[in-house]
Order: sequence, then structure tokens, then C-alpha cells
Amino acid sequence: MIYLDHNATTPPTPGVVQAMLATMTDVWGNASSQHRQGQQAKRALGAARSRVAGALGCKPAEVIFTSGATEANHLAVLGLHAAAQGTGRRRIVFSAVEHAGHLALARALMAQGVPVDFIGVQADGTLDVDHAARLLGPDVALVSLMAANNETGVLMPVQKVYALARAAGARMHVDATQFVGKVPFDFATFGADAVSLSAHKIGGPKGIGALLLRERVTLLPQMQGSQERRRRGGTENLPAIAGFAAALDALGDVEAKAARVAQLRDAFERGLQEALPGVHVFSAAAPRVASTSYLRFGALSADVVLQRLDQLGVCASSGAACSSGGSEPSHVLTAMGVSRDEALAAVRLSLGDTTTARDIEYVLAALPPLLAPSLQGTTAHAA
Amino acid sequence: MIYLDHNATTPPTPGVVQAMLATMTDVWGNASSQHRQGQQAKRALGAARSRVAGALGCKPAEVIFTSGATEANHLAVLGLHAAAQGTGRRRIVFSAVEHAGHLALARALMAQGVPVDFIGVQADGTLDVDHAARLLGPDVALVSLMAANNETGVLMPVQKVYALARAAGARMHVDATQFVGKVPFDFATFGADAVSLSAHKIGGPKGIGALLLRERVTLLPQMQGSQERRRRGGTENLPAIAGFAAALDALGDVEAKAARVAQLRDAFERGLQEALPGVHVFSAAAPRVASTSYLRFGALSADVVLQRLDQLGVCASSGAACSSGGSEPSHVLTAMGVSRDEALAAVRLSLGDTTTARDIEYVLAALPPLLAPSLQGTTAHAA
Repeated sequence: MIYLDHNATTPPTPGVVQAMLATMTDVWGNASSQHRQGQQAKRALGAARSRVAGALGCKPAEVIFTSGATEANHLAVLGLHAAAQGTGRRRIVFSAVEHAGHLALARALMAQGVPVDFIGVQADGTLDVDHAARLLGPDVALVSLMAANNETGVLMPVQKVYALARAAGARMHVDATQFVGKVPFDFATFGADAVSLSAHKIGGPKGIGALLLRERVTLLPQMQGSQERRRRGGTENLPAIAGFAAALDALGDVEAKAARVAQLRDAFERGLQEALPGVHVFSAAAPRVASTSYLRFGALSADVVLQRLDQLGVCASSGAACSSGGSEPSHVLTAMGVSRDEALAAVRLSLGDTTTARDIEYVLAALPPLLAPSLQGTTAHAA
Repeated sequence: MIYLDHNATTPPTPGVVQAMLATMTDVWGNASSQHRQGQQAKRALGAARSRVAGALGCKPAEVIFTSGATEANHLAVLGLHAAAQGTGRRRIVFSAVEHAGHLALARALMAQGVPVDFIGVQADGTLDVDHAARLLGPDVALVSLMAANNETGVLMPVQKVYALARAAGARMHVDATQFVGKVPFDFATFGADAVSLSAHKIGGPKGIGALLLRERVTLLPQMQGSQERRRRGGTENLPAIAGFAAALDALGDVEAKAARVAQLRDAFERGLQEALPGVHVFSAAAPRVASTSYLRFGALSADVVLQRLDQLGVCASSGAACSSGGSEPSHVLTAMGVSRDEALAAVRLSLGDTTTARDIEYVLAALPPLLAPSLQGTTAHAA
């Protein structure tokens, strides 16, 4: 099997599984307990928190462990919005291309009467910064923007928007789930008050993530309890936190790894375009993370392409895993002005650390012959 | 080390660790992905969900996996309360002895203007059912009651209160975190619309729990996303869910195990009372789960007793792990009318499946000589 869906989830790195296993077996105490079994867990938790903080360029106290990026995103938006209560700032500004679950949160807030705006994107998937500037008025409590899009891989101008947010007196939350591990990340210099990330997108365990929250920024907890400095209740998931730390430690030289993956991705896109007519790469000219290739084969339906890929033993996706299986076109492509038919033709292949040149060569050799017959038909039809 | 703090957390049973390890290694796909790696995860998720449902006497669709009991408790209260919006029912009734994190949620809701009441308890820790009946008026949206108290082990009259709640037209949520695994549990016949539980209290992994929600009962999600039938967003934590299923499968004959533990617990309490003057067992005459012993040694401060226990290599607690380390008396004992000094003397020892008769014999032999000198002093002083 060739796994080209690393944006959905990644295989856990061996050190991660080992770290979780060791923690589950040896350090299973409740980190809030005062006895030696608990204190052993507390020390292990402190050590893991320091490693996570070190890898992400933040202070240990700035790390709030959550059950994943979805929870971190909710905590950031709901917690920062609640903290702004009484300031006259009620509006929340999202980008139009946030993760589907995050946009569902935006809609749920709108249904509760919270004023919400969406920053549009250009045809290439990049953020419309002028639109962001127009939306950032004195009633804005919070901007919530992803660092890299999960479908197109397009990098968002976080620093620019943070400058706008600061000038407007608003807080800024960044969902860096698809950014960390693909681009060097340092919270201290990254533009945001709060940043979400997920372990399972970087070789770590499922069920664990973090919200990094800058010191002196107040947020109201969404789960009450004494843990995480009262910012997130619930018994600490130490085995997963240890696995998260191991995954971050194993990232190594992110820039060098990204350069390797970019070469593979570029060869892949170039190879497909040379072998087949009508291959279109979405956001090809935009700044993108190295790993993501979002493309369509003429107007061939994504279902057909994915079926052919499956025949070849290749795992890919028609977009985000969380909204796959639906028949609706991608909201990201729709926001970019892509037509419904072209959006329903979109296939996402996302590479990772375990992707080899051989994997790419294999797909480049095997896929075009399978697609060529139907492709020439539909391209003619689409033309 | 002798671990007598099973109410805080339990050592994972070997089958649990094995199930998680196998899942992390072999079934690491995203269960929402459509490709074979994802579908394999989806099938494993379905199988684990069916096993969990089977073990708990509910339908697979009635299981909402969460990151633990804290999240399940929040989802139940906030989600059922939000679903009652527009019915004129706004009030939430908690018991006064809920878990500290759950009472913090109650206070947070009060701060937001939600009317909240607390059902009191008797001196023996049992619920004041008459008080519950008086509080359950037509404005009540929801009653939230634990099945067994985490400090005293006292069993709450869930069925009686459910009958009152139904008669009043209110929903009922039960936190069964300290009940499941200690008393036979069957959701189909258990009195509640929604029941929370946690895996790590029954030999399962940390970071996973569930809210069981009766069919046709509506609740508003607190984390948006397509997972768990749109009731709880976020990538499914399949390894932990597989571990949760393994822990439930390993429970075996809960009644027989509880009878064994009850014998040990009773021998323990009797032995201490025979060996030392002034040993008081809280809620001794109340219906309690078999595993929990909450006691004080005259007026000896819990800190002193725990220090002695630590010398003997015994892990115990002054109450809930989540509020241990504080200098405030237990809110549970306070609600029972216990004085501050006596409450600060309370020590909780909670037995589990791994507790042996030898463990108990050892503590019974070793602890009294250590406590006797200081105890005679303070008992005289307290008398």
C-alpha cells in the first residue's frame, strides 16, 4: 500500500508507540495524585510538557494539552470570545477556508446570535488580505485563521493578519494543524495569541493536541477542572502526551525534510502533467506546504480517480477526511471560485516522511495508463 | 508499592495495552477516510463501538466517544441544556456532592445567569430525595447526578430521581464514572437519558470515555464535526477506543469481583477499628460501592496519615485526586455536615482488581503501630 493521505493522519513513528507503551506500563498514575505513583506521573508530565514546549518554541506554561486540534480550536475561539465579554467586542472573523469542523463552529455561533464574518480567498487559494483589513473593525474580538490549508496546502499570511488584528485590538487564533511539522515553527516569533495543533498529523498519537496560549492572554476554560492551570479539566492523558513529545522530538530538521518532500511532490505534479492532458493543480503557483498536491484530471470525477488509485493500492482523498464521503463540492474550492464540476473532480494526495521516491515513481508509471482512456474522453467533453 | 487509590486511576490491564499497541501499529488510518487504510480503521471503530455497547447494555448508536468523563459530563449538561432552549426550562439541578470539576461547571453556568440548584445529602452521604423532589419543578431542564460518589463511594438513588425527573418533564444525566466496573451496569434498564463514564477508572486507557445517550434524546454538540453522528467532532481516537473496549471486556463478572473486594474492604475497616481507637468510617452504614473506604483516624490530619502510608509504600489519597494537594476540606464531607477539622482528617483508600488479601493484611499489620502514638494524643485532644 502506498499511503498518500498524510494530511488526514500519519502513521505513528516507532518512537511514539514505544513512548506510549512505556508510559502506559510504568507511569500509569494520575498526575494530580499526591502519592508517589501520582508524583511520578506528575514529573513525567512536566518533562513531556517541557519537551513539547521546547520543540514548539514556547514556555511550558503556554501549553494547554487538549484531546486534539478540534478541541483546541473550540477552546481558543469560545474561550477567547468569552474572555472578551464586556469589552464591546463580539464579532469573530474566520477565513472562508477553515477546516469544515471549524466552520461548523462558526455557523453554530452565528445561530446563537454571535456576529461572524468570513475572509475570502483569491482564485489561487491565498487569503484576501485587503478583505481581512476591511473586516477588522473595533467590534472584532477575535480572528481565527489556519496557517496552512488542509486541502490546497496554501500558506496563509499569519503575520500580516496578526498585525491587522493587533492594530484593531483583536485577539488572533491560528490553527496550525497542517503547518507544524511541514514548516519550521516557533511560537515565540509566530504571529498569534493562540495556536492549535494536533499530534496525529505529525506521527504522534490520536486523541492528543495542544493549544499554545501566549502568557498574560486570558481565556475562559470550556471544560472545568484543576488540570492545565485550570484552563482544561480532565485527567491528564499522560501516555498520549509522552507520545506527542516523542513525535515532536522525532521531527528533526523540518526544513530539510520539507525540501525532500517538495522535490517528490513537484516531480509528481510535473510527471502527471507530462503524461496526461488536462491535469490541473489547484494553487500551483501559490505558496504551499511541500507535501500537498490538490489536483484534478480534466473533469474526471474524483470518485473515478480514487477508484483507480485504490486499484493501484494508493490511498488518497477527495479532500478533507472529515468531509469525505459526501457529495458536496469542497468549500475551499468553492471559496476559490472553482465550479462545482471541477471541484467534484478534485483529488488530494499528501506526502509525508515515509513517502519514498519509489512510491512516486510507481504512481507516475501506473496511474496515467489507467486514466488516459477516460481522461481523453472527458477532456474533449469538458473542452 | 501497594496502590490503594483506584478511584483516582487504575493500572491498565495488560489486554488494554496490547489492544492499543496493535491498533496504533496496524490500524492507524483516519476512520473518516474513504480509502482502504481509512475503511480498515472504520471497521475497527465499528467493532470496538459494538463491543463497548454490548458491555454497557446499549446500542452502538447510543455511544458517543469523548476524551473522558469530564468531557462527557460537559457534553451532557451543556448539550442537553442547550437542546431545552425555547421550552421555558432553564434550571439545572446538580447534587451537592458531584465531582469538583462538575461543580465548577455548575458555578460557571451560574455565573452566566443559568439558574442552578443543588440537592443536599444526609449526614451519611446519601442523597436527600425529598429535597430533590422539592427542587424538580416545571422550569427544570436537567438533573445531573453521579451514580456513586468518588470520595465516599455512596450509591445515589438514580432510579428514584429519574422517576422524579420524568414526572417533572426534565432530562437526567448520570455520571457513572465511579459506578461502572464496580456494580453491574446496563444502560437499557438504568434510569437516565445520558450516562458518562471513563475508561481509565476501569483498567482502560486515559484520554477516552463515553457519553451514552438514549435514542431520540437530542443534545447539541459542544465540539462541531462530522464524527460520532455529528454529536462530537474530532478525529476518532481509535487506539484508545480499542483499549476502552478491551477494558470493558476484561471486567468479567463485576458482581463476583465486587464481592471479593467488599470482603477485603470490610476486613480492612474492621481491622483498623479493632487495632486503633477513634477510627471513623464515613458513610459506613450507607449503601456504598465495594471498593471505597473513606475514613479518619481520630482527628489526625490526613497529611500525617498519608505520610505514614507513604513510608509503608502505600498510595492513598485525601479525597479526589483532582482536588488533592489543596488545603480545603472536601466539599462532599462539608455537604454531609462534617466539621472542617474532621474533614481535613479524611483519608480515602480505594481498592481494585489488583488489590490482594496480602496487601490488606500488610497495611493492617504495619499502619496501626505507626499511627497509635500520635492517635492516642489527638484522640484525647479531640475528645
